[in-house]
Amino acid sequence: MSRSSQERSDEGWLPPRCFVVIMAGGGGTRLWPHSRRGRPKQFLPILPGGETLIGATLRRTLRVADAAHTLVVTTAEQVPEVRRCLPALPIDNILVEPIGRNTAPCIGLAAQTVAARDADAVMAVLPADHYVKDEDAFADRLSAALSIAAQGHIVTLGIHPSRPETGYGYIEVGALDADGEGTTRESPAMLSTTGRTPHRVLAFVEKPSAERAATYLAAGNYLWNSGMFFFPVRRILTELRTNLPALAAILDDIAAHPSRTAARYPEAPAISIDYAVMEKLGECSVGSERAIRVLSGDFGWNDVGSFDAMDALTEGDASGNHALLSPEVPHPPLFVQARRNIVCQSGQQLVAALGVDDLVIAVTPDAVLILPRERAQDVREVVARLSQPGPSGLSRLL
Amino acid sequence: MSRSSQERSDEGWLPPRCFVVIMAGGGGTRLWPHSRRGRPKQFLPILPGGETLIGATLRRTLRVADAAHTLVVTTAEQVPEVRRCLPALPIDNILVEPIGRNTAPCIGLAAQTVAARDADAVMAVLPADHYVKDEDAFADRLSAALSIAAQGHIVTLGIHPSRPETGYGYIEVGALDADGEGTTRESPAMLSTTGRTPHRVLAFVEKPSAERAATYLAAGNYLWNSGMFFFPVRRILTELRTNLPALAAILDDIAAHPSRTAARYPEAPAISIDYAVMEKLGECSVGSERAIRVLSGDFGWNDVGSFDAMDALTEGDASGNHALLSPEVPHPPLFVQARRNIVCQSGQQLVAALGVDDLVIAVTPDAVLILPRERAQDVREVVARLSQPGPSGLSRLL
Repeated sequence: MSRSSQERSDEGWLPPRCFVVIMAGGGGTRLWPHSRRGRPKQFLPILPGGETLIGATLRRTLRVADAAHTLVVTTAEQVPEVRRCLPALPIDNILVEPIGRNTAPCIGLAAQTVAARDADAVMAVLPADHYVKDEDAFADRLSAALSIAAQGHIVTLGIHPSRPETGYGYIEVGALDADGEGTTRESPAMLSTTGRTPHRVLAFVEKPSAERAATYLAAGNYLWNSGMFFFPVRRILTELRTNLPALAAILDDIAAHPSRTAARYPEAPAISIDYAVMEKLGECSVGSERAIRVLSGDFGWNDVGSFDAMDALTEGDASGNHALLSPEVPHPPLFVQARRNIVCQSGQQLVAALGVDDLVIAVTPDAVLILPRERAQDVREVVARLSQPGPSGLSRLL
Repeated sequence: MSRSSQERSDEGWLPPRCFVVIMAGGGGTRLWPHSRRGRPKQFLPILPGGETLIGATLRRTLRVADAAHTLVVTTAEQVPEVRRCLPALPIDNILVEPIGRNTAPCIGLAAQTVAARDADAVMAVLPADHYVKDEDAFADRLSAALSIAAQGHIVTLGIHPSRPETGYGYIEVGALDADGEGTTRESPAMLSTTGRTPHRVLAFVEKPSAERAATYLAAGNYLWNSGMFFFPVRRILTELRTNLPALAAILDDIAAHPSRTAARYPEAPAISIDYAVMEKLGECSVGSERAIRVLSGDFGWNDVGSFDAMDALTEGDASGNHALLSPEVPHPPLFVQARRNIVCQSGQQLVAALGVDDLVIAVTPDAVLILPRERAQDVREVVARLSQPGPSGLSRLL
C-alpha cells in the first residue's frame, strides 16, 4: 500500500465508484415459526420499532453507497418482501435468482450486473440478515474495507471474537515475516479493531469444536468469519473464471443472452464463495498480492443464527429476559420469577412466563414453540416434523 | 340401620324423591388463561369431544335424578354459560346467587328451594367442576350415598387416597367400639370402596403438610374430602338453623318474600358448609345418630385444582405428555424429545415443544402461559399482575 493511499484511508476516503450488494436469498428454518419459506428472518420486524434486519442492513450501507448503487439479490418468491421492506430501492436493482444456488453464483451474477454498469467499480457483498449493534464502528470498517478493495484486493471483515463460539467459521490471520516474503502468525496485539491497515488471511477455518474454538481464542490471531467481502468487480470475475470456470461460462452466456437466465442459472454449481474462491486464495502465500486482506472489527456483530442469539438484539430486563416483539404486539411479556428467557413474538396474545429459566418462547398467530435456549439449533427438528408427508396438513406452516 | 334397608341398598335401591344440586358458582384463577371471571373452569371444553366439566357432572348425575329434579346454583354472570353447557336443564332449575357467599348459603338456598317442591326429598350436593374417570363406580357410590341419606343421615363421599396429596382436605374415619358406644379408629381394612355400609366421620382435617399427609396415608383411616354431600333436605335445614341461625333467618325472609333475595342474600355469612355444619357434626360422638356418615369411593376423582392435575383427564403419549384441546384446535401438539408436559389449548395455533420436560403450556387466543408443573398453584401470581392498576390494560384478560 502506498503512503498516499494510506493517508487517504486514514481520512475516511471512499472509492468514488462503489456498489453494495445485499444477499437476501436465504431460507432458513432456525427461527421457525417466525421465519417461513416465503419470509426468512431478514424480513421479520424484530428490531426496535419493527425494523427488519434487511431494512437495518440497507440503512447501514447507505452511509457508503446510495440506493442507486445498491443491489439486492433474492428469489422470485421473496421479491414482494424486498419491495415492502426496502421501498427506496429502485426496481432495477433487485436481481432475481431463478433458484438459490449458494453464494458463488449469487455473487457472480451480481458482479456481472455491476460490471455492466461500471466495469471499474468496487463492490461490497453483505448478507441481509446480520445484526450490527455499533453502527458507527461498522461504517468505519465498511469504508476502510472499500478503500483497501479499491487498491485491487479482495478484503473480508473478521470479527473480534468475544467467546469460543462454535456456530461461526474462523479466519486465521497471518503476517509477512521480517523479510516480507514468508508466512508467520500475526501477533494478536496487532489485530486492531479500528486500524485501517489490513492483515492477511492465512486460512479460513470451518465451524470448530468447543475445544478447538477455545484454542483459537487463546491463540489470539483468529477472527470470526463475517461473510462480508469487498473487491473490485473485475477482480472477483477473474477469480471466478479461474476457480469456477463452469460458473463463468454460464454467466457469460447469461450476459450475452439475458433471456436464458432462467434456463441457465439453475445449472450453476451450488457452491459458496468461501469454498469456491476465498479458501483457495487463503492458501496463497501471505506474501502473494493475491492473498486476501482482512480487517478486524468489533461492532456488536451477530448473525442471528438462532433464537438463542437474539438476546444480542435487545436490552434485557433485570433478570436477563429478552423480548423481541413485532409492532402489533399489544403488551410486553409478563416475566414472573423467570430468568434469561427469550420471547420472540408477533400477533396479539399476552405471553406470560412464570418460574421458567433459559427458554425460548416463540409465538406467532398460527404457532407456539417452546424449547430450551441451548437447543435453539434444533428448531429444524420441529420443522422436519412439519415436512413429513401425511394427512396432518402441517406443511402449510412451513 | 335396619336389616331390611341394608338389603334394599344392596340391590341398588334409590330413594324415590331425590334432588341433585350442582354448585357452579366458583370463580377460580388457577387455570388462567383458560378460566376467566365470567368463564370458570367448569365451562371449559377440555374433556374429550369438547365436553365441559359441568356437562360431564350432569351426565353422571342423570343416572340418579332426571333434569326436572336437578338444580344448578350459579351467579348471574355465569347463567349464559350454564344455559349453553346444560341445554336440557329447565330454566326454573337454575338458582341464581346475587353474589357468591361460599357454600353454606348456597346449599341453604338450594335446600330451601328443594324443600318448597318436596319437603321430604333427599338431596345430593356436588361441585360442578370435578372430574370422575370411572363413571360406573361413581354411580354406584352416588346411589349408595343417597340410600343412606334417605335414612336421615348426612353423608359424604371420601376418596380413597392414592398419594400423600397436600392440595386436598382429609376425613378421618372412625368406628363404634365393641359396645357400640365409644369412639375408636376405623380399621383401614374396613374402608371398602365398594361396600354400601357407611363409616362414621371422626373429624374433617384441613389441607395437610406433606409430612402429615404421609402419616395420614400410612394410618389408613383417612380419606380425601370430595366436597360431595347427601342429606334429607329437612335435616340440612335443621342443622343450618342450629349452627348458623343468621343464615337461617335470611333464608326464612327470602322464602316469605322472594323479591328480597337480591337485598338479603348478600348479608349471609360467607362461610363454607364444611366449616358451618360438617366440622361441627364431625365433633359429635361417633356413636351419635347425628354423626356424619362417610362412604369410601375410588372412581378416578380429581378436583382439577390446577394445570398440574389435568394429566388425569386424558391419556398421555408414550413420553407422558398430555394435551387438553378445545374442539377447534386443528392439530394436536408436536412433542419432540419432550416429556411429561401438559398442553392446555384453545384456538387455532400449532403448539410445538422441543426438549422441554414437566412444563405447563397453556394457550388461548389471547394469551400464552408457560410454567413448570410443580408451580401450577402459582398461576395466581400472574393473575395478580394482570389485576394491578395501571395503564397496561391487562385487566381485560381477567
